Amino acid sequence: MHKVALIGAGRIGHIHARNAALHPRLELAGVVDAIEASAQALAGEWNTAVATLEAVLADPSIRGVIIASSTDTHLDYSLRAAAAGKTIFCEKPVDQNYARARGAAKALAGANMLLAFNRRFDPNFQALKARLDSGAIGSIESLQITSNDPSPPPPSYVAISGGLFKDMAIHDFDMARWLLGEEPVEVYAAGSCLVDPVIGELGDVDTARTVLKTASGKLCVISNSRRSGFGYDQRIEAFASKGMVRADNVLENTTQVWSEAGVASDRLQNFFLDRYAEAYRREMDHFADMLDGTPAMVGYVDGVAALALAEAATESMKSGAPVRL
Amino acid sequence: MHKVALIGAGRIGHIHARNAALHPRLELAGVVDAIEASAQALAGEWNTAVATLEAVLADPSIRGVIIASSTDTHLDYSLRAAAAGKTIFCEKPVDQNYARARGAAKALAGANMLLAFNRRFDPNFQALKARLDSGAIGSIESLQITSNDPSPPPPSYVAISGGLFKDMAIHDFDMARWLLGEEPVEVYAAGSCLVDPVIGELGDVDTARTVLKTASGKLCVISNSRRSGFGYDQRIEAFASKGMVRADNVLENTTQVWSEAGVASDRLQNFFLDRYAEAYRREMDHFADMLDGTPAMVGYVDGVAALALAEAATESMKSGAPVRL
Amino acid sequence: MHKVALIGAGRIGHIHARNAALHPRLELAGVVDAIEASAQALAGEWNTAVATLEAVLADPSIRGVIIASSTDTHLDYSLRAAAAGKTIFCEKPVDQNYARARGAAKALAGANMLLAFNRRFDPNFQALKARLDSGAIGSIESLQITSNDPSPPPPSYVAISGGLFKDMAIHDFDMARWLLGEEPVEVYAAGSCLVDPVIGELGDVDTARTVLKTASGKLCVISNSRRSGFGYDQRIEAFASKGMVRADNVLENTTQVWSEAGVASDRLQNFFLDRYAEAYRREMDHFADMLDGTPAMVGYVDGVAALALAEAATESMKSGAPVRL
Amino acid sequence: MHKVALIGAGRIGHIHARNAALHPRLELAGVVDAIEASAQALAGEWNTAVATLEAVLADPSIRGVIIASSTDTHLDYSLRAAAAGKTIFCEKPVDQNYARARGAAKALAGANMLLAFNRRFDPNFQALKARLDSGAIGSIESLQITSNDPSPPPPSYVAISGGLFKDMAIHDFDMARWLLGEEPVEVYAAGSCLVDPVIGELGDVDTARTVLKTASGKLCVISNSRRSGFGYDQRIEAFASKGMVRADNVLENTTQVWSEAGVASDRLQNFFLDRYAEAYRREMDHFADMLDGTPAMVGYVDGVAALALAEAATESMKSGAPVRL
Repeated sequence: MHKVALIGAGRIGHIHARNAALHPRLELAGVVDAIEASAQALAGEWNTAVATLEAVLADPSIRGVIIASSTDTHLDYSLRAAAAGKTIFCEKPVDQNYARARGAAKALAGANMLLAFNRRFDPNFQALKARLDSGAIGSIESLQITSNDPSPPPPSYVAISGGLFKDMAIHDFDMARWLLGEEPVEVYAAGSCLVDPVIGELGDVDTARTVLKTASGKLCVISNSRRSGFGYDQRIEAFASKGMVRADNVLENTTQVWSEAGVASDRLQNFFLDRYAEAYRREMDHFADMLDGTPAMVGYVDGVAALALAEAATESMKSGAPVRL
Repeated sequence: MHKVALIGAGRIGHIHARNAALHPRLELAGVVDAIEASAQALAGEWNTAVATLEAVLADPSIRGVIIASSTDTHLDYSLRAAAAGKTIFCEKPVDQNYARARGAAKALAGANMLLAFNRRFDPNFQALKARLDSGAIGSIESLQITSNDPSPPPPSYVAISGGLFKDMAIHDFDMARWLLGEEPVEVYAAGSCLVDPVIGELGDVDTARTVLKTASGKLCVISNSRRSGFGYDQRIEAFASKGMVRADNVLENTTQVWSEAGVASDRLQNFFLDRYAEAYRREMDHFADMLDGTPAMVGYVDGVAALALAEAATESMKSGAPVRL
Repeated sequence: MHKVALIGAGRIGHIHARNAALHPRLELAGVVDAIEASAQALAGEWNTAVATLEAVLADPSIRGVIIASSTDTHLDYSLRAAAAGKTIFCEKPVDQNYARARGAAKALAGANMLLAFNRRFDPNFQALKARLDSGAIGSIESLQITSNDPSPPPPSYVAISGGLFKDMAIHDFDMARWLLGEEPVEVYAAGSCLVDPVIGELGDVDTARTVLKTASGKLCVISNSRRSGFGYDQRIEAFASKGMVRADNVLENTTQVWSEAGVASDRLQNFFLDRYAEAYRREMDHFADMLDGTPAMVGYVDGVAALALAEAATESMKSGAPVRL
Repeated sequence: MHKVALIGAGRIGHIHARNAALHPRLELAGVVDAIEASAQALAGEWNTAVATLEAVLADPSIRGVIIASSTDTHLDYSLRAAAAGKTIFCEKPVDQNYARARGAAKALAGANMLLAFNRRFDPNFQALKARLDSGAIGSIESLQITSNDPSPPPPSYVAISGGLFKDMAIHDFDMARWLLGEEPVEVYAAGSCLVDPVIGELGDVDTARTVLKTASGKLCVISNSRRSGFGYDQRIEAFASKGMVRADNVLENTTQVWSEAGVASDRLQNFFLDRYAEAYRREMDHFADMLDGTPAMVGYVDGVAALALAEAATESMKSGAPVRL
């Protein structure tokens, strides 16, 4: 059993607490949160103790930390945890500022750090990757990533989100890098404000299309909207030289009603807590593997690379011209 | 080009007239119907002549006849066409009376006769058969045939239909024999009148389940209803030793609407004229092949065998006990 | 928090232990098993104690017992738990012998007892039931229940299983009663041994079709095989007066590969531990509700009724004639 | 009956000949082709006469002409037919050169001319349009058009094709205009040569992504490849304010094989002759409606507008910058 501590007792912290507490190889040994009551409630739920960051970092028996606190603390806590020799599970993004994130390269170079892009652990996308890697349909040539939220976040969130590309598309940039197997060298993005004018007033967009191109000419389109109107829309199509593999959405259940009106299936799963529940379990399992010595599947450098694409996309959208990396 | 004549200018006659007239190896050389105006209208549509049955049978240049007249004439016209040496395309059923149908065995033994069970020519069911025959999923063990009409026929039709098993399930008995590759030796049928009490007053049922068993123990269930409420429901599932192959229904188009309410596909094709349009073309093509020398895929003996099963099912439903053949 | 004890630390006991231990309103207060080591291992996994049945029944702080021991103990333990005033969660079947099961009617009449037919708690079948109950497609008229295991159990299991109808179809009989909303009054069953001759030598069948008929004429077909060749095949189609609702199988993931060979989806979930994982959680949740005062959704009388149908089906298959209830 | 003549007896000419000849309101009154033998063969097939363009245009009894000759003749023949007062059915594109095409504006302003973009007549895309127009899912915001050929054409064709955007994507530009209900004002295109280096040597690309933006900010992505590896890939997804409607591909048949390997459906329809067979019938039906007085659904101005987008996309791809229209 590896002792781990959780930093951040918010919504995503609750998920990681449960998955760590129930994991056969992990022991949730402490919960840290700036808000005492939040830390207490979550620690109580899993029969563990409230702790401070300092105490956690100073305790040699605690080998891993899970950073699920607010975005602006990710980089600082990661650096401190790395300095303390901890194995790190850090929520995405590594930071909202590319220069600052990149500036930590040296300090985090040797860190045993998982940057938790949850979609890499989704069973559907993992199956898609496995089918691509099997070579059965040849080599990948292009990619269509569709990633729409069910409904827009509140303006207060939009204001501090870093913008659609850093907040939402950053997952898709990571997926693109993972699946293309080659770095994008050019980014073009077009965005519009079609869902909610308040988002536009805040200087952001709610609908976007991004085109990535790699040095060898592989193409990737990312489609984003802050509002689908039908639930969480998370799909990927990978076109290869001998065929295509896609991962589709997940419906609430398998029922169909056949009537005069046609064939009616149930709703899509509404949002990420449902759709990625298993992904969160699998990333905690991977964290346990890391504590056993397995290298991280996705780490700091991936977080920085995705952030670079998000910045390039933001710039392209504003200038109207493609950006070369 | 083979000259063929059509007997019967009703609904199904119109379909066969079109398919014969447009077939590159057939020439529609005459249309016969008891109702002169019907014959004239259809003949006019395809630039051919009205004829009498006698003239058709006496004309040596007309090599094939398509019998699409009322059920009670099928056997008589087939016998006369056979006596005249014609190649015969006869609509199902061969007759409503098993004894009478069987009595024609000797006279029709040498006839070059297609009994037009349209489903044997449906591309979906043919693909299912091909996949079974390929051996990829082992040998067939059991069968589920679902066959529901969109809505019940008028009472006047029910009264002369011969009952659900001879009128409707007869197609399914033929499918069962074709796919099982072995004759059923026991039949059990249960029926109810759930759709329209008038059907019950006429001594018929509108909902039925039939279980067939072969000598080696293969099982087949046939599910029938005179009313689906959602269109033409024509499906088959064939379970084999290494898997299952099924043929599903056909939708009007491939659109889907994704909304808060769920995923809505369009309607099923409504009835047999849509669903089996291609099957009718393929059976006419097979008739052309027969005129070129190919043996009939399905003939008089198959018609009699299906009729025997329909009679056994009717008897079982009435007695409440299985019937051995 | 309601204290509950688990009787039986086998495969299904492990599932119930986990679901009870993780349930926010339940406390797993003890594990009982004839094999000491099994009890200890499972109790250790969830930080609880090993106990004896006597101690559990005598402890007034333990309000609920989960009976997951071998089938031949279900009835005895239920009776003892009922006598001790416990709320009971009993695995199906209530017993293999109909007369014996029925004989307990008086003693269990007042018991607060859940008979754990897991499929009533499956999200897909619950959604199907909800859609039927909504009345949107009228009233139910017939039912097709398909229930095939991936591969046959070992002969040693078949020998003590009570036969296909009591061991396997009993779930389907319960589904039929639940969905038809009316008791079957006639049962016809046909069975064959097509999968494994050893099953036949043991006096059992491995492939069966059962037809149920209610007093008002509603029809239900149950299709069973001990071996599908493609995973766990658990589907229901309910035909109503204005349409049909069906619940389909669950695939391993949503990927599809499109290639020259066609469109390839992934495998079906292989067996009940995967397919019914959520159902097991939901039935434990229902047990918590019962401890809070909610009446059992399915209980002793349902267990007896399903057993009566299983006996009738067995008799019908042997005699070759339908059995009236 | 309206007399119509066909100009061009090639592959697409054969389709139009059949549809015109079988149309209940049209009479195929002549076939024109530079190659006498081709004209004769096709005319013979449908019992009509070989003609010259001059004779057709001079014959007042021939009210409509179907221009299915080589692309470089479309504009010239359309102008001559318009001058002769004929109702015109012209294959796409109107011309390969935008300036030349636009130059005919005045001369064709009053022409009764159908520019035959076949996809507007496809039942699936028409159903998609109808669902959008119904308003049930709000107003359209963005569009994903996927349009991949099964395999690349021969180099000889590529050389004279006008390039991927004018030859292949032109259909998609027309779809975009039809569905967006608003003209694109900006075009960005990225292209690669991934399928066949010979295509690159000819100065063309085989893989492309195009982003269109309208004045109000609606976005459309067009994905093209000269080779899918799995058949004809023709799909559209239209995202609206309350949901999404998509039209999917068409499979060869509805069979599925369920086995240890997973669920295998059949192949996609291979190419446009299968996929758009019904669309070709419907466009001929629309031509008959035009001869009866109905205005053309899609005409010269649409052909020119699509060509403008194709030119802009070509320019954008070459310059690497978006092009404003």
